[in-house]
Amino acid sequence: MPTYTAPARETRFIVNEVLDLASYGNLPGFESAAPDIIDTVINEGGKFCQEVLAPINRAGDEEGCTRHPDGSVTTPKGFKEAYEQFKEAGWGTISHVEEFGGQGMPHVLGFALEEFISSANQSFGMYPGLTTGAVSALLAKGSPEQQATYLPKMISGEWSGTMNLTEPQCGTDLGLIRTKAEPQADGSYAITGTKIFISAGEHDLTSNIIHLVLAKLPGAPDSTKGISLFVVPKFLVNEDGSIGERNAVVCGSIEEKMGIHGNSTCLLNYDGAKGWLVGEENKGLAAMFIMMNAARLGVGVQGLSQAEVAYQNAVAYAKDRRQGRALTGPADTDAKADPIIVHPDVRRMLMDAKAFTEGMRALCLWGALLVDLSHKAATEEDREEADAMIGLLTPVIKGYGTDKGFDVTVNMQQVFGGHGYIREWGMEQFVRDARIAQIYEGTNGIQAMDLCGRKLGQAGGKAIQAFFKAVGEECAAAKADASLAPLAERVEKALGEQQAATMWFMQNAMANPNNLGAGAHHYMTMMGIVTLGFMWLKMARVAQAKLASGTDDKAFYEAKLVTARYYIERYLPDVGALRRKLEAGSEAMMALGEDAFATAA
Amino acid sequence: MPTYTAPARETRFIVNEVLDLASYGNLPGFESAAPDIIDTVINEGGKFCQEVLAPINRAGDEEGCTRHPDGSVTTPKGFKEAYEQFKEAGWGTISHVEEFGGQGMPHVLGFALEEFISSANQSFGMYPGLTTGAVSALLAKGSPEQQATYLPKMISGEWSGTMNLTEPQCGTDLGLIRTKAEPQADGSYAITGTKIFISAGEHDLTSNIIHLVLAKLPGAPDSTKGISLFVVPKFLVNEDGSIGERNAVVCGSIEEKMGIHGNSTCLLNYDGAKGWLVGEENKGLAAMFIMMNAARLGVGVQGLSQAEVAYQNAVAYAKDRRQGRALTGPADTDAKADPIIVHPDVRRMLMDAKAFTEGMRALCLWGALLVDLSHKAATEEDREEADAMIGLLTPVIKGYGTDKGFDVTVNMQQVFGGHGYIREWGMEQFVRDARIAQIYEGTNGIQAMDLCGRKLGQAGGKAIQAFFKAVGEECAAAKADASLAPLAERVEKALGEQQAATMWFMQNAMANPNNLGAGAHHYMTMMGIVTLGFMWLKMARVAQAKLASGTDDKAFYEAKLVTARYYIERYLPDVGALRRKLEAGSEAMMALGEDAFATAA
Repeated sequence: MPTYTAPARETRFIVNEVLDLASYGNLPGFESAAPDIIDTVINEGGKFCQEVLAPINRAGDEEGCTRHPDGSVTTPKGFKEAYEQFKEAGWGTISHVEEFGGQGMPHVLGFALEEFISSANQSFGMYPGLTTGAVSALLAKGSPEQQATYLPKMISGEWSGTMNLTEPQCGTDLGLIRTKAEPQADGSYAITGTKIFISAGEHDLTSNIIHLVLAKLPGAPDSTKGISLFVVPKFLVNEDGSIGERNAVVCGSIEEKMGIHGNSTCLLNYDGAKGWLVGEENKGLAAMFIMMNAARLGVGVQGLSQAEVAYQNAVAYAKDRRQGRALTGPADTDAKADPIIVHPDVRRMLMDAKAFTEGMRALCLWGALLVDLSHKAATEEDREEADAMIGLLTPVIKGYGTDKGFDVTVNMQQVFGGHGYIREWGMEQFVRDARIAQIYEGTNGIQAMDLCGRKLGQAGGKAIQAFFKAVGEECAAAKADASLAPLAERVEKALGEQQAATMWFMQNAMANPNNLGAGAHHYMTMMGIVTLGFMWLKMARVAQAKLASGTDDKAFYEAKLVTARYYIERYLPDVGALRRKLEAGSEAMMALGEDAFATAA
Repeated sequence: MPTYTAPARETRFIVNEVLDLASYGNLPGFESAAPDIIDTVINEGGKFCQEVLAPINRAGDEEGCTRHPDGSVTTPKGFKEAYEQFKEAGWGTISHVEEFGGQGMPHVLGFALEEFISSANQSFGMYPGLTTGAVSALLAKGSPEQQATYLPKMISGEWSGTMNLTEPQCGTDLGLIRTKAEPQADGSYAITGTKIFISAGEHDLTSNIIHLVLAKLPGAPDSTKGISLFVVPKFLVNEDGSIGERNAVVCGSIEEKMGIHGNSTCLLNYDGAKGWLVGEENKGLAAMFIMMNAARLGVGVQGLSQAEVAYQNAVAYAKDRRQGRALTGPADTDAKADPIIVHPDVRRMLMDAKAFTEGMRALCLWGALLVDLSHKAATEEDREEADAMIGLLTPVIKGYGTDKGFDVTVNMQQVFGGHGYIREWGMEQFVRDARIAQIYEGTNGIQAMDLCGRKLGQAGGKAIQAFFKAVGEECAAAKADASLAPLAERVEKALGEQQAATMWFMQNAMANPNNLGAGAHHYMTMMGIVTLGFMWLKMARVAQAKLASGTDDKAFYEAKLVTARYYIERYLPDVGALRRKLEAGSEAMMALGEDAFATAA
């Protein structure tokens, strides 16, 4: 049975020391996040995840969700009780706006908690996670009446939310949506159609479920410019806010999946269900992207979460399991064999994981800070800058974070040898659960196109230039410290490779856009590696300063310096290789006719 | 429901054109493998796999194996009938020695068939696959009486075989084995102990199961030098060859696993079971390695197999599924969207898969030819050379083949987007099944140590020097053709990187063996990439010659040239990156104390 400990010390290091959240105390919401409050949220939230959510993760996988003949769905044993506790403690309210009952604290804290929740129980975390996405959309685009009706109960966790995009014929290409919205005399719309892959689409955790649904108005353009967003509650809400009539949306089936069995992935049939337009007609895509972007960051965090919990269990196994002897001679002469953590190849996998999770955590929390600053920074210019930067980083956090998160999770399973393949050890569940994060909320191929096709060129490349500047400045600062200079020089070199690849796109994508498509995934990976290198330089500088000024936690900061070096030695070499692949262009990739992919007997 | 077509045209290309099997007609066994016989085996064997084995693969996964209270095990519905057909057709006998009822044909053909079997149904293929391993050990080390008793019925498929190494406390480190063998008055041994993870350990496909078991004699040395190999039949065999008394070996449980549910992975309890020594006392490890090496090559083929079947299904989906438009403008203006195969990122994944599977198939079949030559080449010197080369390549085929095979399988699942995560499409089964191949028969970390710690230095590095020479000669030959020269130069450069890494090991591993351990996995990956580059040059030269001399299958050979170029552009850049990681050495990897891996609250 796997275990989980919230890495609170690591989170405090990033929040308090690397990001220095206290220095933003002049901004709204941040004043409430004094270091002692931060510590309480991190420590108590972590404890809740360890003690309540982690113990039901295996059972959730084994039992899964059950759909009953009437279309109702029961979550696995223990989920409902855990959700009650989650709601009572207010863990879902941390970063939500105070106006509708949230605690108004920085997203940084909400994100820190999201990591813990997903590590402890990814399937559980998706229920409140989807609600958060739906809340974002209603906050941004809902009418005051819609906000007043739904937001307080969604934020408190009394009700939950969903995102309804996918249909059988329509996944990535939302222009293909067929679900119809017919205007009714009372100002509402009758929604009819079938939505699939709806996470948390039906369940027994909340008394109402608020579906946000993409659909087409009669005569709407036959493209993404013809889709509108609707709010469709499972139960209609009476004027006094109480639960009313059951709406005509029913769960037709739940999907049998590879993993995340504790979350109900539903096919939802809308049969003239009553819905209300959110925002403007035919502007549904923009509204949907608001919740999608929030969700994408959350999914990136899931990549970190599964890697982290898998890493913790692999470490415990590697210290306990004894096989063979250290290459440099027996480490434990009293025993017949040494713990496998002495073997370099086991170390390689553990250090790869440690370097990724710690770097990725820094990136996620920086990303959350940027979300905060995009709303709350003092000047419009600062807010716009933060918004552009998080827009640029979102596909990297989602795409690179989940690709690498999956790889790390697989490697942590590998540490267990044959035992990793056996269900009872729980490692294979982490792998199956981690796999979905590369797929949902836009596959990682879509993330790469979002990064390269949209974000790189936005506003004349302002965001990527700002990114280059920020990394360059960090390198310059680190180079000023002689002991960090060799690390900084290598990050600077990798940044140079990324800049060259960016230039190659500029010179070659106009003539043939396939050159962009062919290199997009390479570019996203490259940027992920450079960004974590950037984070590692930042962390190394903080660690170096602590060690210089004296600390009673010397080992912690020394480990940061070693891990920074390991990251830079073991991850950065791929950047040059990725540049060469990218610069190979699309010719050989696109040369073959479709027939060449057929298998001939 | 996924489908499978045996890639017979591809196999014929390698066997007849690249390896030119006909040119070995002077060697024993090869004379029976005339091109028309080869074609028949490939075509008919392929058809059997498509029509009989593939259709029961999903059901095998869903249903799994069932252990009954008496310890007996039932395989999934359809497996027994399929096994009967397999046995009747003699598919298991192809490459076995004629002396004991085999057809004595080259291993190349047996391997070609193994690929098809594993693609169609990996779980099924493991039953005869394990038998083949056990046959190898008995052939090499069994007494004439043991050979006469067991081999004919094992080769015919009437009985099956297993390998019993692992115990709860003992996986990689076989010195920790506790299973005891007590000599009995009649010359037999009483075997007592618990073995775990025994694939095909108990089932209903055959009337007897012949277990090969590692155990310790009383007073044997407390290391791998103290283990002996025993043959322990499930049912004792009477003098006349008929089935006798039930032996004291019982399946205590079957493991719940991530995949390969159609194969029974057993815990076997030996309670004074009657066994007989195979080979010499305390020399069990050498005997075990004979079957292990055969098994490792078979596992390497599994990496290819899952990638191949996943690729075929991803191609079909990518041609059928319509989302979005080609970046260069609509490809199919009659439809609302283009098939996703037009998108470069989908192409990238398909071309990565195509380049891997075709290259890996060439490597596997070359490996099989080396196995043949190690037994049958005309001179002792040639036999030794072939044996050393396949010894060197075995960890690369197993380790790199299954690592990359898994990655490709995961990418093929990715082509399906959300549908890839849903069980009914079958892609997630391929991923779960493929995962085991990186683990069993020695984890890939162990393969890397076998390659770098044993094989590289054997006989003064003779094998690796022969490998460098062979690749170098292929590059020289390809450079003679102006159109292939640019490809050859890049393979030559990658070879240079591998040679430099080899030199680095020589200069740095003696002083600190952790430098070897820290770089072993990088080296194995690097050598895998270079070896497939070598295969691609070979294939490109054959294709070029065919196109020059005129062929009515022009498209086939042109596709080979494009794919060769794609491989060289997209895979080789990693070689330089791996060299840099390897040359970073073990310092940062091994610097942290065990405490630094603990998670602090």
